[in-house]
Amino acid sequence: MPRLQTTLGLTIAMLLAGQAGALAAAPAGAGPVLFRSAGPIQADYPLFAGERRRLAELVEAARRGGIQVPVPRDPGGGSSHEQHKRNYMAIYAAGLLYRVTGDGAYADYARRLLLEYARLYPTLGPHPAASGDSPGRLFWQSLNDSVWLVYAVQGYDAIRDSLSDEDRRTIDEQVFRPMSTFLSEGQPQVFELIHNHATWACAAVGMTGYVLRDDELVARALNGLDKSGRTGFLRQVEQLFSPDGYYTEGPYYQRYALQPFVVFAQAIEANEPERRIFEYRDGVLLKAIRATVQLTQGGYFFPLNDALRDKSLKTDELYQAIAIGYAATRDPTFLSVAQWQGRTTLTPEGLLVARDLAEGKARPFPFASRLFRDGPAGDRGAVAVLRAGSDERGQTLVVKNSAQGMGHGHFDKLGWMLYDDGAAVVTDYGAARFLNVESKDGGRYLGENQSWARQTVAHNTLVVNETSHFDGQWRVGESIAPRQLYFAADGPTRVSTAEVEGAYPEVRFRRTLAQLEVDGLASPLVVDLLRVQGSEPAQYDLPLHYAGHITDVGFPLHSHPAERPVLGKANGYQHLWVDASGTPEAGNATLTWLNGERFYTYRMLPPAGTRVILAESGANDPRFNLRREPVLIERLENATDATFVAVLEPHGRYDPAAETVTDSRSRIAALRHVRTEDADLVALELVDGRTLTLAIADDADAGKAHRAELGGKPLEWSGHVGRFEAPTAGEPPRQELAAERP
Amino acid sequence: MPRLQTTLGLTIAMLLAGQAGALAAAPAGAGPVLFRSAGPIQADYPLFAGERRRLAELVEAARRGGIQVPVPRDPGGGSSHEQHKRNYMAIYAAGLLYRVTGDGAYADYARRLLLEYARLYPTLGPHPAASGDSPGRLFWQSLNDSVWLVYAVQGYDAIRDSLSDEDRRTIDEQVFRPMSTFLSEGQPQVFELIHNHATWACAAVGMTGYVLRDDELVARALNGLDKSGRTGFLRQVEQLFSPDGYYTEGPYYQRYALQPFVVFAQAIEANEPERRIFEYRDGVLLKAIRATVQLTQGGYFFPLNDALRDKSLKTDELYQAIAIGYAATRDPTFLSVAQWQGRTTLTPEGLLVARDLAEGKARPFPFASRLFRDGPAGDRGAVAVLRAGSDERGQTLVVKNSAQGMGHGHFDKLGWMLYDDGAAVVTDYGAARFLNVESKDGGRYLGENQSWARQTVAHNTLVVNETSHFDGQWRVGESIAPRQLYFAADGPTRVSTAEVEGAYPEVRFRRTLAQLEVDGLASPLVVDLLRVQGSEPAQYDLPLHYAGHITDVGFPLHSHPAERPVLGKANGYQHLWVDASGTPEAGNATLTWLNGERFYTYRMLPPAGTRVILAESGANDPRFNLRREPVLIERLENATDATFVAVLEPHGRYDPAAETVTDSRSRIAALRHVRTEDADLVALELVDGRTLTLAIADDADAGKAHRAELGGKPLEWSGHVGRFEAPTAGEPPRQELAAERP
Repeated sequence: MPRLQTTLGLTIAMLLAGQAGALAAAPAGAGPVLFRSAGPIQADYPLFAGERRRLAELVEAARRGGIQVPVPRDPGGGSSHEQHKRNYMAIYAAGLLYRVTGDGAYADYARRLLLEYARLYPTLGPHPAASGDSPGRLFWQSLNDSVWLVYAVQGYDAIRDSLSDEDRRTIDEQVFRPMSTFLSEGQPQVFELIHNHATWACAAVGMTGYVLRDDELVARALNGLDKSGRTGFLRQVEQLFSPDGYYTEGPYYQRYALQPFVVFAQAIEANEPERRIFEYRDGVLLKAIRATVQLTQGGYFFPLNDALRDKSLKTDELYQAIAIGYAATRDPTFLSVAQWQGRTTLTPEGLLVARDLAEGKARPFPFASRLFRDGPAGDRGAVAVLRAGSDERGQTLVVKNSAQGMGHGHFDKLGWMLYDDGAAVVTDYGAARFLNVESKDGGRYLGENQSWARQTVAHNTLVVNETSHFDGQWRVGESIAPRQLYFAADGPTRVSTAEVEGAYPEVRFRRTLAQLEVDGLASPLVVDLLRVQGSEPAQYDLPLHYAGHITDVGFPLHSHPAERPVLGKANGYQHLWVDASGTPEAGNATLTWLNGERFYTYRMLPPAGTRVILAESGANDPRFNLRREPVLIERLENATDATFVAVLEPHGRYDPAAETVTDSRSRIAALRHVRTEDADLVALELVDGRTLTLAIADDADAGKAHRAELGGKPLEWSGHVGRFEAPTAGEPPRQELAAERP
Repeated sequence: MPRLQTTLGLTIAMLLAGQAGALAAAPAGAGPVLFRSAGPIQADYPLFAGERRRLAELVEAARRGGIQVPVPRDPGGGSSHEQHKRNYMAIYAAGLLYRVTGDGAYADYARRLLLEYARLYPTLGPHPAASGDSPGRLFWQSLNDSVWLVYAVQGYDAIRDSLSDEDRRTIDEQVFRPMSTFLSEGQPQVFELIHNHATWACAAVGMTGYVLRDDELVARALNGLDKSGRTGFLRQVEQLFSPDGYYTEGPYYQRYALQPFVVFAQAIEANEPERRIFEYRDGVLLKAIRATVQLTQGGYFFPLNDALRDKSLKTDELYQAIAIGYAATRDPTFLSVAQWQGRTTLTPEGLLVARDLAEGKARPFPFASRLFRDGPAGDRGAVAVLRAGSDERGQTLVVKNSAQGMGHGHFDKLGWMLYDDGAAVVTDYGAARFLNVESKDGGRYLGENQSWARQTVAHNTLVVNETSHFDGQWRVGESIAPRQLYFAADGPTRVSTAEVEGAYPEVRFRRTLAQLEVDGLASPLVVDLLRVQGSEPAQYDLPLHYAGHITDVGFPLHSHPAERPVLGKANGYQHLWVDASGTPEAGNATLTWLNGERFYTYRMLPPAGTRVILAESGANDPRFNLRREPVLIERLENATDATFVAVLEPHGRYDPAAETVTDSRSRIAALRHVRTEDADLVALELVDGRTLTLAIADDADAGKAHRAELGGKPLEWSGHVGRFEAPTAGEPPRQELAAERP
């Protein structure tokens, strides 16, 4: 590495100075506007060299296949479809490789491919396999054409100064200009949407505008066909992310949506730095990149809404986003993300990442407790993330108080999930889908995505009368958002309170989830207080989906050991096998399981008459489409107002190497709940005699003072939450937490 | 590291020269005979420094608890029991730390503990909580007393030269001599067994003999109470390991059994090198250490018999064995095992390991295809391990043709399991036990270990009439061993053939499992040919326990989607839920599943009328003691002679990062079986038109020539197995494999 530092230092200095260099003597207006480098880059920083090798192999494989630019014919997955996808990647890769290596063979290969497109493209009308209202030319839907253009124009930019005037003119006028005309004025019904698909079109058109030095294309891309700003990229930046950088469909789709935003933003920054695009709207694009990383655990996205659990930061969109984000900020915490990814881009931004990482500049990404408000104005609920410190293995509580999230949203208002000791312990099923596995419904969302994964009972939140929120109608869900009433993330008592009204007719429910650090406990306790108010007697189910093997059940069970019935008929209930059920008392309503090397006890305070059902997903699944995962359901029948109180406690250690086990039993002796005039008191007694009381006022106002009484002793606090601890059972409780924010 | 090299080089040189040094002016006959070092060891090699820190913390914790030597009272798990366990570890650790650091405080702590034992021990009779025929003095069973002595005498050896003559005499005569007298002549019914428990007693007595310079104790330990060699350590070395170093209870218990053998052997080597103990019986002790490592995948033991799946090489027994093995051989491949373990011992042998590892001398452990014969003479069956190369992630096929393995043995003659791409794909349940988890039957073997885990249906082998091998009687199983007829591990066609007679009355079955490398396939194919010969019509079940999620079933299924029945009544069948069953034809009898990033297709050639049942463990399990794992069962009713043929094929790749899937469908077009006069032909046709035929003669003789005909074309081969491949469907097949060994 060191031997190249001088050369590189220079190259990088030039790159950073924004100097547009040229490998050959470039005609005016032909040099790269996206990939600005002063000459071949002789860097062997591991990440950069790795990407160079990867792309060189990709281009080599493409070259072996020859120049294949078929007449469009097939829908998604078909051979002409796949060939055009391979081609845009080959043009992109060959262009970058030419820039990085100076090897004219790469430029020539991209040139020959593009000249073929120049022959084909002008002959094309709407795609023969098109369906829907946005047919493409090369692909069955124009979204794919936009993606083609975003990639291909980057490759083209990189080789454009190596072309003869004639070739350049041919490709300009027969590929890039007509494509960007088609994708903008040719399909206003897409281009003028405030929607992620339109962002791809705007990015494609705008980047082409910069490369062709066509101000008109750039202006359309930024401010819409009429340049009024009513539509276009800038409007999309305003509307599609919340002020906290949250994208309403959830982390899995946020990752996907991010790419055209950051790639086009980088092009804007390179060509019109005076726009300060990364500072636009209080820097929301950078917030979006950081939010995307924050919405992960161990590198894997929280699987909210339609999401695959195995999707991680190791994905094309994020290699691009991290490199661009780093180039824009030099925030060294992005480098640790790149390190985990093990990849970067073969661009000047990727070079920076690779260099600075190799030079040891990486700093840990600051994972933190954060509220991610939803909606353009930040008033459509929120995802609340509570973390025990910045270590990514630290306990992470995710509360989904956000809006519906459009058609990929799940019906899980005020649901939650929990990671502890690096593993998902209270789980979200994510999507029912085997992406691209042909035998599983062609790799699309499975029927069970609708019949199970989206349904409320598949989540950790209230189900009324065995139906899902909004009766399973996402458009109805779009009209109603929860309200995040309170969020406090500092100190040892981290709390989220939210409320939703209208998920069910005449039913309102409010939930407080608190993450409590307690001296002497390895990981925080999670306290859950859910209050329902209904107008008609109804059945309330509160499921807890957990991961692990049951080691202890505190209450007597009636089992179905030899014939396993199904819990219900519809709305997800038809997919649950019942293993056992029982009616616990206040003192014995516990379930303990082992996950990895830690035990977890879920301790409930069920309303009188509540039955607890132990079940497992997988019923009515003749095609084996579902994973089989356990769930506990608290069921209260014939109720109007009710309060569900529970605490989830990580404890002990199972060490298979040393063959030792510690604290396999809960450290909590008792859980109590008292309703006072304007507050709920949740009191925990530890086996060592300490008590811990959480007082949660109905009012979320920070300034308001409250009093209550517990066991004859007065409690006083101000604001939404008070925490009281007594070192020994005899001492009066004393408030530990007063600070909070509304 | 470098700054210490000179000092260390010297110290190690002295260590290696076997120089008995002393920290203080040691009286003659008091210096260490086990931990021979010339002075404090100032090494900061990571593994050695780590172990020093770990033991220092352990001793510090023990010291904080003060000197506690309680009168024995409790059985296993009770407080006096646990305290005596902590004490031996503290004496051991304090002794080693004194030797390594020269800090007299460590010696003093061990001295004070031992003087307490000198007061207590002479007062003790049989343990008050004793049960069984071998009560201890300190512990309820004398096995624990032996373990106490093995550890404590190592600590004592390390401090003995620091003691006053009086203290030394007190501890010699009131602790170590009476304990070794008790453990030898005091309990001949244990000491004279040829059993692992007796090995602990011999090691304890023999090591004490060296430390006390008592030749009589050493002689008893080596050759039995009467010194005839009929019993004692040397006899145990001959009887308890097979000539290949295999221990009959299987890998999990092999690990456990190994410790007293290697620790005592090291003491013999240090004091009587002329015995060449590590060369004894063709070096069987070193073979046993290496076999223990070979019987792992990814560091985890093959879970044969009663075994916990999460048990790995990271265990006390193996830290000791690897350090001692390395010191005895300087085989640098042991160092890579130590590296994976991340620990070594705080002994001269551990120092060597830590130093040479830090100096980069480690070489990959040579994982290889190997036959591990069972029984003292190697004629009681075998465990056959077939590996695709020496990479530990390479495909590994384990065939269990070994003997019963005593009371911890499972009823799974000729069963198999498979690892591929680093994961268990065809699985063995292992033991039903949550070790040391109190709520799970006190952490002991669960009832389900007998009712499920040991039963034949819980394994991948033949079940006749829903009963287990030997009718589930392990003592009957001990009397009958399979015969390993053939094993060939070289080249692209690796084969094991074995036979068993007597697992069921009047039933004999023979199984060939072959691991075939095929050009263009990422991982080998596994071909399974099982021939049963019975005298009475019976029901044959052939289960395949697999890990993964079903992605495709080739044949029509009758499902039980809404009410899940149980498969049977007893012998493990009561624990199986039935999901579905069907009656496939020859062309569609496939099951495909996804495990990690790879697909697996199990393709059967079921005898006519065979029903295939898809089921899952977990029925009749009201206490949630079982893991829920899928199984496929081929069921043939009313059969006498039958042949089951199948091939397991890894294929394709599911890449969640790139969101690409390749080859999710099998690459095999057809599977055929032909019985000839004296052989079975198994023919595979690949989708690319190639054919591959395996010809398996009844006769395992290497020299014998065979001919057969397939599709009108002649096949000729010599020996047990012939392999024929045709590059295209039209060409005549040609033999690829002739080499084999009997």
